[in-house]
Amino acid sequence: MTPGDIDSSEESAEDRIIARYFKPLARDPGAFGLIDDAAILTPPDGCDLVLKTDPIICGVHFFAEDSPDAIARKALRVNLSDLAGKGANPAGFLLALAIPADIGGDWLQAFAKGLGEDADHYGCPLLGGDTDRTPGPITVSITVIGTLPHGTIVRRRGAKVGDHVLVSGTVGDAALGLTLRRDVAAEQRWKLAGDFREHLTTRYLLPQPRNALAEAVRRYASAAMDISDGLVGDLAKLCRASGVSAEVEVKRVPLSAAAAAALVAEPGLIEPILTGGDDYEILCTVGADALEAFRGAAAAAGVSVTAIGRMTTVGKAARFLDASGGLLAFKRPSYSHF
Amino acid sequence: MTPGDIDSSEESAEDRIIARYFKPLARDPGAFGLIDDAAILTPPDGCDLVLKTDPIICGVHFFAEDSPDAIARKALRVNLSDLAGKGANPAGFLLALAIPADIGGDWLQAFAKGLGEDADHYGCPLLGGDTDRTPGPITVSITVIGTLPHGTIVRRRGAKVGDHVLVSGTVGDAALGLTLRRDVAAEQRWKLAGDFREHLTTRYLLPQPRNALAEAVRRYASAAMDISDGLVGDLAKLCRASGVSAEVEVKRVPLSAAAAAALVAEPGLIEPILTGGDDYEILCTVGADALEAFRGAAAAAGVSVTAIGRMTTVGKAARFLDASGGLLAFKRPSYSHF
Repeated sequence: MTPGDIDSSEESAEDRIIARYFKPLARDPGAFGLIDDAAILTPPDGCDLVLKTDPIICGVHFFAEDSPDAIARKALRVNLSDLAGKGANPAGFLLALAIPADIGGDWLQAFAKGLGEDADHYGCPLLGGDTDRTPGPITVSITVIGTLPHGTIVRRRGAKVGDHVLVSGTVGDAALGLTLRRDVAAEQRWKLAGDFREHLTTRYLLPQPRNALAEAVRRYASAAMDISDGLVGDLAKLCRASGVSAEVEVKRVPLSAAAAAALVAEPGLIEPILTGGDDYEILCTVGADALEAFRGAAAAAGVSVTAIGRMTTVGKAARFLDASGGLLAFKRPSYSHF
Repeated sequence: MTPGDIDSSEESAEDRIIARYFKPLARDPGAFGLIDDAAILTPPDGCDLVLKTDPIICGVHFFAEDSPDAIARKALRVNLSDLAGKGANPAGFLLALAIPADIGGDWLQAFAKGLGEDADHYGCPLLGGDTDRTPGPITVSITVIGTLPHGTIVRRRGAKVGDHVLVSGTVGDAALGLTLRRDVAAEQRWKLAGDFREHLTTRYLLPQPRNALAEAVRRYASAAMDISDGLVGDLAKLCRASGVSAEVEVKRVPLSAAAAAALVAEPGLIEPILTGGDDYEILCTVGADALEAFRGAAAAAGVSVTAIGRMTTVGKAARFLDASGGLLAFKRPSYSHF
């Protein structure tokens, strides 16, 4: 090379970041090793693609002190959860990462490691992306692409009168975990013993998307979504889309031992448990004739599911009934950024 | 409805923003009217999907005082340009919009209007997305999905010794336009007459992606990419990916009348013209036997293309020769955020 030759030795710092930290993740042939400025995906014949983008922002969706590993995993998992809620299987994702000037190599290394491990675990390869400096907070924008057989997407609409309402896992843990992060007195007030605090804060930090449940949702659910803005608000959205009202018995809503203990100490926690969001569980409706088959498929997938109520009448209301059959009212039924 | 009924009248402000400003854009059936939490795309049989995400951030890629209309169009167009550079046709896009608290309805209305007009113009419908508050700057993360016949993507690699190097449109306008925005003295120093200032600043504000050229690129180019980080650095990337060196005669690089006038007044501008970026033109290589066909297809598509040099030898250097055959050297061959 002579002076005036412009070659790879003069590649930009941005290219070096991509090559060092993200290229090792981009083993899918469609990623072209991140050498090109776009990725390729060859969809299987007869499939539909399910597309979702849900960014996470420092100070909004996670704390500045959260580990880069956890930030990366959360960024991917909140999107994977949406695929699960539609009955789709992950096919790959794009990453748009905006980082402030004080983010260095150690952070990027840990971020990429967590992201790569989750990509492998969930079978969702990195296909491409972009890295920028930002004068603002760390912003991780992931777009996931899922696939399912043509015409089999499970939507929010589709629930019918008589269908059972089911949720996966447990509800409210993440909302309580977030409160524990913000309110140092909460742990004592809730009389949390043993590892209950850690259980709740981990549920906030690291969602557990129910992708294992996707096929069961696709085969048996009449309507489905993931719970990200709280059970109450999200069920109301499902009701509205389906044109059917729901009745949920609050005592049937599955709680973790930690959430149940906190609720005994502070009964008012029922509101954040049911409305706080960040659950990343599946909310779905299943016809009475498919209920046992759905339960069996969920058990085979290793995901607990709990029937919490029924779709009752034409309408669009989600009603939550206490032990005496009274209607619960909520100050703020659904999480919103605005 | 009775107290305790949770229904759509209690939908969140986020849902209202989506319903008011973005639902009118989401007319594609796969968008489900933005009611669901994911979108669907049914790919044509035998196609590959081309995927790209490239966010724009206030203070990095645009100015706070830029109109919301222009911000929206730029956010979409920088991504459309990547599809054009791969020979792909737009199929749809996802929008992840993060806005600070002081952004109100008027801004969103104008943003959505510009976005919708461009989506229609380029045939690239809004399929889904997400809206968040951010404590940081406006961040618009768009992911585009394109399609092309299976196996026909045009990559950065593929250029061969003897191929012609071509660029669309004109080079350097946006870099000069950005300087005009930052340096109030530049206009006078460059002796810009008539509408030259407006031409240059508009080229920075509103990229003109060459999607009309996509089919010609797909049919005739051996390698291609869009120029976003500057001709010099991007050609070096193409050389590196292809394993071939390039020689460009600088006098053949197409300049607008405005850029040519500025260059006469200040010869040192050749560096920002060739390295400044934000061109969003197509850089491609075409074999000698396909050159006339490519020119014809470009003319039919209404896009000017100019041959500026040849791929010369095995290697990875991009050489820029001045009128006397001397090699130009550059301080910073390629735009980088880092």
